[in-house]
Amino acid sequence: MYTLDLVKPDGRCLTLYGRGPVTAAGPAPSPRPAPLHPNPHLRWHPLRGEWVAYAAHRQDRTFLPPPEYNPLRPSRDARFPTELPPGDYDVAVFDNLFPSLAPEAHDPPSLHVPTQPGRGRCEVVVFTQDPQASLGGLPLTHVDLLLEVLGDRTGRQARRGGVAYTLPFENRGVEVGVTLHHPHGQIYSYPFVPPVPARMHAQELDHWRRTQQPLLESLIAAELADGRRVLYAGPHAVAFVPAWARYPYEAWVAPRRAAPTLAALGPEVRRDLARALRTLLQKYDGLWNRPFPYLMAWYQAPLDGAEHPESHVHAEFAPPYRTRDRLKFLAGTELAAGMFAMDALPEDKARELQAVAVPIDE
Amino acid sequence: MYTLDLVKPDGRCLTLYGRGPVTAAGPAPSPRPAPLHPNPHLRWHPLRGEWVAYAAHRQDRTFLPPPEYNPLRPSRDARFPTELPPGDYDVAVFDNLFPSLAPEAHDPPSLHVPTQPGRGRCEVVVFTQDPQASLGGLPLTHVDLLLEVLGDRTGRQARRGGVAYTLPFENRGVEVGVTLHHPHGQIYSYPFVPPVPARMHAQELDHWRRTQQPLLESLIAAELADGRRVLYAGPHAVAFVPAWARYPYEAWVAPRRAAPTLAALGPEVRRDLARALRTLLQKYDGLWNRPFPYLMAWYQAPLDGAEHPESHVHAEFAPPYRTRDRLKFLAGTELAAGMFAMDALPEDKARELQAVAVPIDE
Repeated sequence: MYTLDLVKPDGRCLTLYGRGPVTAAGPAPSPRPAPLHPNPHLRWHPLRGEWVAYAAHRQDRTFLPPPEYNPLRPSRDARFPTELPPGDYDVAVFDNLFPSLAPEAHDPPSLHVPTQPGRGRCEVVVFTQDPQASLGGLPLTHVDLLLEVLGDRTGRQARRGGVAYTLPFENRGVEVGVTLHHPHGQIYSYPFVPPVPARMHAQELDHWRRTQQPLLESLIAAELADGRRVLYAGPHAVAFVPAWARYPYEAWVAPRRAAPTLAALGPEVRRDLARALRTLLQKYDGLWNRPFPYLMAWYQAPLDGAEHPESHVHAEFAPPYRTRDRLKFLAGTELAAGMFAMDALPEDKARELQAVAVPIDE
Repeated sequence: MYTLDLVKPDGRCLTLYGRGPVTAAGPAPSPRPAPLHPNPHLRWHPLRGEWVAYAAHRQDRTFLPPPEYNPLRPSRDARFPTELPPGDYDVAVFDNLFPSLAPEAHDPPSLHVPTQPGRGRCEVVVFTQDPQASLGGLPLTHVDLLLEVLGDRTGRQARRGGVAYTLPFENRGVEVGVTLHHPHGQIYSYPFVPPVPARMHAQELDHWRRTQQPLLESLIAAELADGRRVLYAGPHAVAFVPAWARYPYEAWVAPRRAAPTLAALGPEVRRDLARALRTLLQKYDGLWNRPFPYLMAWYQAPLDGAEHPESHVHAEFAPPYRTRDRLKFLAGTELAAGMFAMDALPEDKARELQAVAVPIDE
């Protein structure tokens, strides 16, 4: 992996990544010439016992790009700089212009509930220079590079300090609110372990203390033994619809053996994990022969310097569709109570995805 | 409050409620003549430590009603019976035809994760006989009756046993997936305290043990003292945008003093609570002069027979809009991490709602 670190004129960081040597033709551009000084803050939700982030960004009305303007493709028109320079690279990561969490946050408001600066980091990950591409359609080596990049970002946060948890994710499709279709994801780095990964980590720790086994490793072995919901079983990685799926087309991608973060994976395991990921994505897009929307999230161990043999890095996919033309809306019982209700069995949905043939990656 | 309990031909229960004497013109109808024998089950999500409900209902293809068929209005055409008889009543509650939880659930599948029958109850609450009405547009006495009905249902579950938690809610609007626009809500009764109320109850218990004060009662006093986010302040009840709002137009409705359930409210408090609720709903619908979509959920104390002086019944509203024409999608950080990120301040959204004038209820 080759890298090139740059700084934008407004102070934001940009890293270019490549499978081969990386070059940038010109300095790092930015759609905004001057720093925006984001200053998000956190407020304590006393009934849920969790933090909520607030970032009221001023909308700058002077920047009116043409309708075909795509901030994630390399800059071509000097009047409308994008976020990326032309050059030789495959993947790029830069600080979000409107972050929900920022390293320089300061002076939270004084309220009757606890508040604190919204410290942390929000990054954008551009998967490819090609705006028409899709993650699942990229070459295997490119997907492998992306996993290495996500590991590199996680490692950088771990070394920087002040970050307790890093979550890479992709929102894909208008159905989940995405208006910018250039293939990209995001990375949120939190000053605390957020509620969902905290709950997952507590379960992993509890299982580890009782059995000395990583929980997800045991579950993956059981899923492979059962077989009914398995979508990919490689030498080092798997993709499957979990028996406990909360979304009709939910699927998980994971290495067979526990590893705390993407940064901890060796090259062979990571390559097979890329193969598992790519297989699932091609099944999704092949299911109805159209781009399949989803939320993809990569869960990792907390970044507290400990070893975390109990933690098992994996991706969870939450697609919004129940059937080809019906969305699953999260409503009363899911959002208000937290109990998900499914009108389809994971076994049936897995069978649909198993039936989608995809070419085997070399 | 007047009530009439009936049983449908397929065995499901129906209760009619009225401010005056209740009559049904004919027996309780059902769109399906024979019992459907719903048999939902629960599977344990080992990474989140929570139950997921599965109910794969067979779709009955022989029932093809006309497009204007509305199962929630009183039956008029014997060929297409609805869920309700004609008669004198204001509110009706019946067992959901396709429940996610059912009292008679049995024989869950055997899997490598724990399973159990999906015992519990899913009810539909029809707010009024008028399909064109809206909850906020009903007379104050009618809204008051509805709160009494929700309390009655909660009390019935508490007495029935086997139910640990009852959650009344309303999903309103196509934006949250509602296709049936006759004003109605639902009541889910769970065999366990679901994750969200469990987390809230843990916070309430912790605060009570430390201060001997109910947490939400203290928070409401602080919101009233601050004043910037208050939408209604009556003698016994309030409506406000909480300082810790997770949705742009989130608002809470609660009695000023703690009470564990709707069933525990005296008539004066309940009447003022209805006034607070109706004021908020009219502000919502008045904001953009169109029906305002939302998820409304009524949180109550667990139904374990204890007194729960720490618990404080209240409604939370989660509206899907960020602005008049932009939806807030729950994506990466909200769904995958559980940290909500807001690009608007609660104070600003409260000001918008405060500016909507509504008639004062007698």
